[in-house]
Amino acid sequence: MNDTFLKACRGEKTDYTPVWIMRQAGRYLAEYRNIRSKVEFLTLCKTPDLAAEVTIQPLEILNADAAILFSDILIPLEPMGIKLEFSESKGPIIHNPVKSERDIDNLRNINPDEELHFVIETIKILLKNIKVPLIGFSGAPFTLATYMIEGGSSKNFLKAKRMIYQSPESFHRLMELITDNTIRYLLSQIKAGVQAVQIFDSWAGTLSPLDFSLFALPYVKRIISAINNSVPVIYFAFNSSSMIELAKTSGADVIGLDWRIEVANAVERLGGDVSIQGNLDPCILFGTDEVIKERVSLILKGARKAKGHIFNLGHGILPETSVDKAILMVEAVHERSIR
Amino acid sequence: MNDTFLKACRGEKTDYTPVWIMRQAGRYLAEYRNIRSKVEFLTLCKTPDLAAEVTIQPLEILNADAAILFSDILIPLEPMGIKLEFSESKGPIIHNPVKSERDIDNLRNINPDEELHFVIETIKILLKNIKVPLIGFSGAPFTLATYMIEGGSSKNFLKAKRMIYQSPESFHRLMELITDNTIRYLLSQIKAGVQAVQIFDSWAGTLSPLDFSLFALPYVKRIISAINNSVPVIYFAFNSSSMIELAKTSGADVIGLDWRIEVANAVERLGGDVSIQGNLDPCILFGTDEVIKERVSLILKGARKAKGHIFNLGHGILPETSVDKAILMVEAVHERSIR
Repeated sequence: MNDTFLKACRGEKTDYTPVWIMRQAGRYLAEYRNIRSKVEFLTLCKTPDLAAEVTIQPLEILNADAAILFSDILIPLEPMGIKLEFSESKGPIIHNPVKSERDIDNLRNINPDEELHFVIETIKILLKNIKVPLIGFSGAPFTLATYMIEGGSSKNFLKAKRMIYQSPESFHRLMELITDNTIRYLLSQIKAGVQAVQIFDSWAGTLSPLDFSLFALPYVKRIISAINNSVPVIYFAFNSSSMIELAKTSGADVIGLDWRIEVANAVERLGGDVSIQGNLDPCILFGTDEVIKERVSLILKGARKAKGHIFNLGHGILPETSVDKAILMVEAVHERSIR
Repeated sequence: MNDTFLKACRGEKTDYTPVWIMRQAGRYLAEYRNIRSKVEFLTLCKTPDLAAEVTIQPLEILNADAAILFSDILIPLEPMGIKLEFSESKGPIIHNPVKSERDIDNLRNINPDEELHFVIETIKILLKNIKVPLIGFSGAPFTLATYMIEGGSSKNFLKAKRMIYQSPESFHRLMELITDNTIRYLLSQIKAGVQAVQIFDSWAGTLSPLDFSLFALPYVKRIISAINNSVPVIYFAFNSSSMIELAKTSGADVIGLDWRIEVANAVERLGGDVSIQGNLDPCILFGTDEVIKERVSLILKGARKAKGHIFNLGHGILPETSVDKAILMVEAVHERSIR
């Protein structure tokens, strides 16, 4: 077992910097597209053999130091009572968005071991078949709540913010419910054997620092506290580089960074008691090989004083990316970080 | 003439904090929608009487302390040879995007006094009819370049970034051309009488700090240096709260802030030698009156140590906003900032 990734999470010395890529199981891989041409996205998430297969694909192709469970952050919302569809053109659509107190009343608590058994089974298949740590994950409550209220992706998050600024008690009630169930879901994954978890807060960056503190962070803290150091936790709040000190108060072992901040500056602001993950702009992979290598080196150099560093992109890899460029990046990280 | 806004730009003492709203002439106003129901957006921009009328509308309705010329940042691209359309559903569309060196060769230098005479005329009408300072504006070169390369709005700016990371010389050449013409355009506006200018960098926040420094900022600096202190300059780089120290190196008199940073923190990081503008989340205007007043007070308090403070939203006002809430916000700024 290659445990470089776990060591970096915990801030232990490693021989080189471990690397994985957000959305490493995805459309930029012909092998993934081949499977997706036969099954719908939701079916893929719910079929353990296939979900395990696409999770494994990038490990061999890229030589990544960690696997991440193939799934979607919205999956646990279905047993809560949310009617979910993944549209090829529009992304996720929620057919019964949360509009009222009554909609919140109608949400159910989940039993992940039963209702999300396919996830547990996928984890078990993977643990028998991979030689790198397996990362489990969930969405952060704020991000899940915005999807539930907006009914899908959103530009300005007006519906969610209207609830926040008009009926904060309703919003907090929804967040409590989501948090309870996210804890159940992550604890199930951990019990099944994932060796780390990442909490994706894709939309927290749409909040001001005050609202991040009031309406998003307390719930992330509660989740991390419930995980109780059983596995390392990565907290990735996209587009909140101006608020990383706040993100750190979540108690996560690793703070995920997007590319809007220099790593050295992030390390200085975060201090030496937390590891970092990141942070190459996914678009750099559309550059020349030289540009990619140069930028990898700059990030590695910037991270030298970090407690631990896991190399990653600053967001998911884009479907248009050439797989050769992704391989080149992983090689560059490995070669240029040998200590 | 109410010169509170200009005093705040220069960091002089004011009796209260001046306020205006980005997109204050816009669809949230029935009076604006009424005019737009009769003419297309581009026609409105190019008809001085009407453009002046919609510029004036919010001054009376809101009691704002500054007017901003009604126009669009893409307007000066047309005489450069860009074929521009404003689609109601898709936003701006450029029918001949820049794809190659040859497309750059084909761009022309503009003579704003002639080819954009309608802007000059709008300014002259306004100066005779308003009692607050008139702000002229342009897009920042990076933002204009991305529109020209992407052919419109974009999610990941892949085409623009591909040019940056594959053919940086081509990108720089395009930026030089845009910068030359932006300087001409702003100097024409200043000669016509605008009392301040704002440079809108809507997409700079999609860059890493390194790329912001390499590919966007040098051109903003060149523009500000060409303006040569003839009028105060506001530089607003949206979604770059993690890079405000860099934005300051532009040499602008005022740094525009979005809502992703606390004002007091921004003031601390920027130092006492630059004024600030901002930074209420536009979605706060969908909250209760109490929430709006509270958040206004917090921003005013946070800005106390700034060289100068111009209150504004952290982005354009949303079309769905109730005009009563906007009026309430302006009143709250005026009342709560009296010194």
